[in-house]
Amino acid sequence: MPQLAYVNGRIVRHADASLHVEDRGTQFADAVYEVCAVLNGRILDWGPHLVRLRRNLAELAIHWPMEDGPFGLQARRLIAANGHADCLLYIQISRGVARRDHAFPDAAPASVVMPSVVMTVRRFDFAQRVRQLDTGIRVITAPDNRWGRVDIKTTGLLGNVLAKQAARTAGAFEAWLLAGEVVREGSSTNAWIVRDGRIITHPKGSSILPGIARDSLIRLASAAQIVVEERPFTLAEAIGADEAFLTSTTAPILPVVAIDDHRIGNGRPGPVTARLGELVWAEVARQTGWRA
Amino acid sequence: MPQLAYVNGRIVRHADASLHVEDRGTQFADAVYEVCAVLNGRILDWGPHLVRLRRNLAELAIHWPMEDGPFGLQARRLIAANGHADCLLYIQISRGVARRDHAFPDAAPASVVMPSVVMTVRRFDFAQRVRQLDTGIRVITAPDNRWGRVDIKTTGLLGNVLAKQAARTAGAFEAWLLAGEVVREGSSTNAWIVRDGRIITHPKGSSILPGIARDSLIRLASAAQIVVEERPFTLAEAIGADEAFLTSTTAPILPVVAIDDHRIGNGRPGPVTARLGELVWAEVARQTGWRA
Repeated sequence: MPQLAYVNGRIVRHADASLHVEDRGTQFADAVYEVCAVLNGRILDWGPHLVRLRRNLAELAIHWPMEDGPFGLQARRLIAANGHADCLLYIQISRGVARRDHAFPDAAPASVVMPSVVMTVRRFDFAQRVRQLDTGIRVITAPDNRWGRVDIKTTGLLGNVLAKQAARTAGAFEAWLLAGEVVREGSSTNAWIVRDGRIITHPKGSSILPGIARDSLIRLASAAQIVVEERPFTLAEAIGADEAFLTSTTAPILPVVAIDDHRIGNGRPGPVTARLGELVWAEVARQTGWRA
Repeated sequence: MPQLAYVNGRIVRHADASLHVEDRGTQFADAVYEVCAVLNGRILDWGPHLVRLRRNLAELAIHWPMEDGPFGLQARRLIAANGHADCLLYIQISRGVARRDHAFPDAAPASVVMPSVVMTVRRFDFAQRVRQLDTGIRVITAPDNRWGRVDIKTTGLLGNVLAKQAARTAGAFEAWLLAGEVVREGSSTNAWIVRDGRIITHPKGSSILPGIARDSLIRLASAAQIVVEERPFTLAEAIGADEAFLTSTTAPILPVVAIDDHRIGNGRPGPVTARLGELVWAEVARQTGWRA
């Protein structure tokens, strides 16, 4: 079965899925995206992903006429057509194709530019993430040199790419990005530490991406009487923490056992992270029926 | 005659020019670009554009096997095929197509990813820029919220786009980007002021794009015994300056007659800018034979 993708209303072979070279997503990173986890053929947290997508489109004044219902149907149709029970759904919406000019294309009715919409699906091994709860992963640190609106999930990801590549080169899973001494977040994950049974993560604002998995974890932890502090924390505080972990759509929760060359706690995943791991995967099971 | 574009070694109809949706330029802004001025069918400052392009590719560790000679031939072939004597040549090179992952695609020999190369050409009215020497243009100011490596000319331009759009909405030509009180550059142009016959522009470094037109102007001014100071200047200094102007490939030199609501000098293009305009367009004529 050939892999399939969605481009502007049509399901096409993945190999043939293309955008015009003058798409503003390509020439200006004038595009937003979402990555959704699909387990048992069901999209995790679809509602929150849609809310975030629409908020980001609004921030950039990209007018996208598609309504939620039909769009969800198209996403589900693409997932079904690809036939993977467990996969990642990638959604990208750009301002559309226009003659190259930094400013937005003229909004006059005669020259309406339609957003370009792309969706792709690829198989993903979520069970690996459950196994990694036992081993944990390592992170390095790097200066956060991204732009001032990383709360908008745009395709302008080169700073993230270079940080992730630095992590990969160092044999680490992720790079935590520093503003001075403060740990903001990872290159594609949110960053957390545990102190005295409380969990701490950087507050929302223009300097972090408001992760769907982050929101979900806050909800689950609070319901389980685990205190959540949304406040900046420093690298020194992280190194001295009892535990550390990260969250994202593709890594719903992973223990961080080392930051740069510093072991966290006893260098093994800790009990609070383990407990949160149970809660996170129970929520996945509740929404999708998926079990490792 | 249909408009033509160049995509990965082939000249194709512009309408059909496309890149795969998983091109890293599209998904990560993992791409660099150049815009060159073509007058009388000749590329202005081709050598410096090539040097900058190669430096930017090296900064991102994008390995592009094409040599200068053949690449120049392909660029000139596309220009000739489009048949416009005066136009802009857009060149974009991304890391290539790969399964979506922030880190660079595996560099193992079996999985070599080839950069994607796109060139487009569009007609451009340079005579308009000469006429604008007499009227000048207005700029607004906006905070510089771009990432920390704007010296690399990447397609991660959304910060520039939003600033340019703010200028357009305000009826201005450009937005000058501020770091605190310091004027760094425009959203797609370098920024200059004139004080006591000297010309002043922000020094090179990671916070401005090292413009080819900027380099050229420094050379021409110096040869004409006009003192050039490469140093940061403030918005207050700019507002109090005798003259102001901007430079770029598509606006080789334009007088700035107002910044926000402040008139610069007497609100008309000044004599130093006029003299520099003569030098700039004489250099264009020398290289290409073009005259307004």
